[in-house]
Amino acid sequence: MQSVLGMVAFVCTIACTRYAKDADKAPSMEPRVELLRMSAERVAAFDAVSALGADAGVDACVGAERFIGSLGDLDERLRPSDWAERLIKTYLAFGLLLDFSKALVGGLDEPLRTAVLDVLEADRFDAVTAAELLDDIAADPQLAARLGLWGRRVVGEEIGTLQRVLSVYPELLGGGVDAAGLHEVLSQGATVRMRDLGLRA
Amino acid sequence: MQSVLGMVAFVCTIACTRYAKDADKAPSMEPRVELLRMSAERVAAFDAVSALGADAGVDACVGAERFIGSLGDLDERLRPSDWAERLIKTYLAFGLLLDFSKALVGGLDEPLRTAVLDVLEADRFDAVTAAELLDDIAADPQLAARLGLWGRRVVGEEIGTLQRVLSVYPELLGGGVDAAGLHEVLSQGATVRMRDLGLRA
Repeated sequence: MQSVLGMVAFVCTIACTRYAKDADKAPSMEPRVELLRMSAERVAAFDAVSALGADAGVDACVGAERFIGSLGDLDERLRPSDWAERLIKTYLAFGLLLDFSKALVGGLDEPLRTAVLDVLEADRFDAVTAAELLDDIAADPQLAARLGLWGRRVVGEEIGTLQRVLSVYPELLGGGVDAAGLHEVLSQGATVRMRDLGLRA
Repeated sequence: MQSVLGMVAFVCTIACTRYAKDADKAPSMEPRVELLRMSAERVAAFDAVSALGADAGVDACVGAERFIGSLGDLDERLRPSDWAERLIKTYLAFGLLLDFSKALVGGLDEPLRTAVLDVLEADRFDAVTAAELLDDIAADPQLAARLGLWGRRVVGEEIGTLQRVLSVYPELLGGGVDAAGLHEVLSQGATVRMRDLGLRA
C-alpha cells in the first residue's frame, strides 16, 4: 500500500512541475495562469493523498521517495516543436499516468480506494487541452495529421516508460492488476483520449 | 501603474514555474514538496496582486501580457551543474527580481504600495536556500569558492537582463526610481544575499 500511495503522490508532484513548465510556454496570460492554477491544485492533491495515507497508517511521502527520477526521461527524448504539441504531450502522458494510477489504486481496500480515486479524478488538464485545441484540430486536417502522429509517438514512449517502472517496482502490482491487463487499459485509454480531440489513434 | 502591476504579477508567475522546475531536481521528497508548496504560494501571490490591481481599477493580467518572454533567456544561458548551483541561481535571480519589483512598486501610491509590498515580502525562497546550503557552505571552503564564482556570474547575467528590460519598457520607471539608482539597489541587494550565505560577493 505504501508503494501505491507513494507512486500516486509522486505523480501528483510531477504533474505540478509539468503544468508549471507548460504554463511558461503558453502564448498568452490566460492559459498561463490557468495552467499555474492547475499546478497549485496538484500540490493540494498531493496533500490530500498524504492525508488519506496518514489516516490509513501509511506515509505516502516516504513511499514516494524511491520513485524520484523513475518517470523523468520522457521530457528529454520527445521535445515538442510548438504549443499544440506540448499540450498534446502533457494531455496524453498525464492521461496515461492517471489511468496507471487508477489501476494501481483499484487494488486498495475501501474506503481508501474511492477516496484516492476522487482526488485523482479532479485533475482538469483534459478540459483545458480540449478548450485550447479542439476547434483548431477540427478546422485543420494537416494539424490533425501532425498531432495524431506526434500523439502516437508520445503514447508509445510513455507506455514503454510505465512498463519499465513496473518491471523495476513489481510491488506496485497486485490487488487484481497484472502487467498485461494494465497495458491493455493504458492503450485503450490513450485511444479514447486521442479520439476525444479528433485525432486518429 | 498597469505596467508595474503587470510586471509584478508576471514575476509571480515565473517564480511559480521556476520553483516547480527546481522541485523536480530536488534530491529528496522534503525539499521537493517544500518547493512545490512555494510554487503554489506564488500562484496565490499572483491572485493577490491581481485583486489589489482590480481594486485600484487596473487589470494586472492585461499589464503582464506584454512581458511574456521578456525575462526568459537566463535559463538557457546559465545551466547549473548540481543542486547547490541550481538553488543559488534561483535564490540570487529571484532575490534580484524581488528587489527590482519592490523598487518599481515603490513608485505607486498608498495604500496600494504597501499592500503589494506585503505580498512580495511573503516569498520564502531565501529561508529554504539557507536551510539547504548554509551548513554545507560553512563546512566546505571549496564549495563556497565554487558557489561564489557561480553566484557572481548569475548576478551579472541577471542584472544585465533587467537592464535590458528597463530599456525596452521605460514606462516601468518613474515615481522616484531611475535606471542608475535601480542598478545600485540591485547590486547591493545581491551582495548582501551572497554574504548571508557565506559567499564572497
